[in-house]
Amino acid sequence: MKAEIISIGDELLIGQTINTNASWIGSELALIGVRVCSGQVVSDTREAIVAAFDLAFDRSDLIIVTGGLGPTKDDITKHVLCDYFNTTLKIKEDVLKRIESYFAGRKRPMLDVNIQQAALPEACQVIDNFLGTASGMWFEKDGKVLISLPGVPYEMKGMMQNVLLDKIKDYFKVKALYHKTVMATGIGESFLAEEMKDWEERILADGFGLAYLPSPGIVKLRLTSYKGEEDSERIQAYCEEVKTRLPYHVFGEDDISLAKVVGDLLLQTGETLTTVESCTGGGIASELVTAPGSSGYLKAGLITYTEEMKTKLAAVPPEVIEEFGVVSQETAEAMARGGRERIETEYCLSCTGFAGPDGGDEKNPVGTIWIALATPEQVISKKLNLGDNRERNIKMTIFAALNLLRFTLLQRKNLSTGG
Amino acid sequence: MKAEIISIGDELLIGQTINTNASWIGSELALIGVRVCSGQVVSDTREAIVAAFDLAFDRSDLIIVTGGLGPTKDDITKHVLCDYFNTTLKIKEDVLKRIESYFAGRKRPMLDVNIQQAALPEACQVIDNFLGTASGMWFEKDGKVLISLPGVPYEMKGMMQNVLLDKIKDYFKVKALYHKTVMATGIGESFLAEEMKDWEERILADGFGLAYLPSPGIVKLRLTSYKGEEDSERIQAYCEEVKTRLPYHVFGEDDISLAKVVGDLLLQTGETLTTVESCTGGGIASELVTAPGSSGYLKAGLITYTEEMKTKLAAVPPEVIEEFGVVSQETAEAMARGGRERIETEYCLSCTGFAGPDGGDEKNPVGTIWIALATPEQVISKKLNLGDNRERNIKMTIFAALNLLRFTLLQRKNLSTGG
Repeated sequence: MKAEIISIGDELLIGQTINTNASWIGSELALIGVRVCSGQVVSDTREAIVAAFDLAFDRSDLIIVTGGLGPTKDDITKHVLCDYFNTTLKIKEDVLKRIESYFAGRKRPMLDVNIQQAALPEACQVIDNFLGTASGMWFEKDGKVLISLPGVPYEMKGMMQNVLLDKIKDYFKVKALYHKTVMATGIGESFLAEEMKDWEERILADGFGLAYLPSPGIVKLRLTSYKGEEDSERIQAYCEEVKTRLPYHVFGEDDISLAKVVGDLLLQTGETLTTVESCTGGGIASELVTAPGSSGYLKAGLITYTEEMKTKLAAVPPEVIEEFGVVSQETAEAMARGGRERIETEYCLSCTGFAGPDGGDEKNPVGTIWIALATPEQVISKKLNLGDNRERNIKMTIFAALNLLRFTLLQRKNLSTGG
Repeated sequence: MKAEIISIGDELLIGQTINTNASWIGSELALIGVRVCSGQVVSDTREAIVAAFDLAFDRSDLIIVTGGLGPTKDDITKHVLCDYFNTTLKIKEDVLKRIESYFAGRKRPMLDVNIQQAALPEACQVIDNFLGTASGMWFEKDGKVLISLPGVPYEMKGMMQNVLLDKIKDYFKVKALYHKTVMATGIGESFLAEEMKDWEERILADGFGLAYLPSPGIVKLRLTSYKGEEDSERIQAYCEEVKTRLPYHVFGEDDISLAKVVGDLLLQTGETLTTVESCTGGGIASELVTAPGSSGYLKAGLITYTEEMKTKLAAVPPEVIEEFGVVSQETAEAMARGGRERIETEYCLSCTGFAGPDGGDEKNPVGTIWIALATPEQVISKKLNLGDNRERNIKMTIFAALNLLRFTLLQRKNLSTGG
């Protein structure tokens, strides 16, 4: 069985939007054992869309189309689909009701163009969109399936996860693969591969698949059994091995976020946290807050961007900044100590550094960042030597700080590693 | 003239790598007035590559192929190209010398597979790669051009920028397109389209292109002249019109971020800012910090996640929280007022709300969020009624708060709108 992804939109062709939808769909389909063999990116014109459909039906069994379903005039996919499948649009009452309640819930006026979004091809099965107003459509033709979805990533993802992945598995009777992902941070892809060379060789010799999936600050290791669930214990044993060998770096399994791991540990111990941030500007706290339940442990955060504020809010002695500089181990540690005492929490995470692209000096070039953690017993600090990409430096600092807290929590509580 | 991009590699199809090369090439070509009309992503097999070439030569004038030129065995593009253009590989001495000096400069051993990278099709013009070992290739056939480039982004970009963009312009004698993008926030795509209906009709009647490009909290409006620079004034007039009609929503042009617009305004006025955040957990401050230079105006941020901290750090009277609730206009305003006074800045932005997925009550369901802004003269507040997606609610709140500040700054200073 072959799958194909068609992405519609001039914004993708001229590079105003990066086609993250296609890669997300490709990886989700791979996870359920469906192989994407081709991809097309086409313009918002009838001619281009029809040609793409023809080509895809010629060579693929499952065709997933994204884009071109918005309410504005440049979105023509729905009309092209009607002609292509020789059907007509009809207002679907249940869809209309859902769109009405969508707008009512947000206290926003519903416009005529939104009503038209309830008009859908008679020949399709409607896929409900609970996160927006453009429905998905499932068409069948000679045993092949074409699915049309909106291009808004979270709406598309919602429909894929809630309905379509299961529906595709059922329709094509795909044999499930079994995957397990180990999440690591603070270690580069090639360094990790070098560390785990013998482990990797054994995995491959056992006939399992292994993929390294890097993103800034995080490397995912995905192990795959082509036989499915029956290999789960053997796969799990390989996962435990990497956790045991790299306890500082491996923080969890299966796409859990580092923020959630840290948050869950704190909720488990019933302890509280303060952050005192400089160069990350609140990024450590806001990363923690992405995981629901953060109000259970995050008491406060102080963003002390100026020297004055480091002193005023986090009780950093001015003479420490004077003597050692604002980007120094001593200042980072004083920030953590001060924040912990002022806010009265068990832990306080701090950071200070030159995120770039400007700033820095001979001794501390751009990318020099100190993180520190105050606990009831001690203050631990760590120096990061990063590059000159501001966005990346901030992200790496956030992960490094959270991981320092995670590892320290586990050690203090004698808890098991690896989430 | 039509261009097409072919991206070779299974890692793109199964989503292990996001296809940033295609969007980068698309945007670079758009800037020189070459329109990418199609994109293909294909597997590393001879059959798939040949089919992609056939299709592309059938419909496009310029074909840019990336990927499949590495030294490893699974990279077969070069051999397929030889067969396709009916030519043979031959070691090019000058290329071999360049590869030898590349390895010598890096003090790394040169392997036989690297020597083979100097073997190139006799029928092509070689495009020198000064950043790696795989050369680019320029083939011509019936007035059409196929360019093959390595998939390593910085090598590909180097060859495009140093040689190919100019060579393409010369060969095809292209006339440049002209684009202008207007950035809007706090208004949905369909509502914006409704508001600007007559404007849109006039734009299209004038023969210009218009596209709505939405992402959470932001809608980009892209206007295009197919004649190029000569229409810049007419396009600019259309941009000014949307700014004048929607001054609260339009915050800038050409992909500028809202954080940068707000930051630049504050740097311009020499004024300072504090944030007092609850449900966004530092997200407003960390969004501002994404733009370099934020240390020039962001004095401090307080993340007051608990009621106690709202009182302790931001001087919110406990009786205000008691009487009106922690998610209320009164509490949001007290947070902004208190933060402004405590930190001594001209402005303070605050927010408090139920980001979800849990929390909320009858009166204030999940998605109810209050934002407030304290200025030297007054405190302004605004209620947001969002959905139940935590990540999205946080993002929308961040943009709403920054936009409230932006608009207020412009009004206070009588500055022109729209960045």
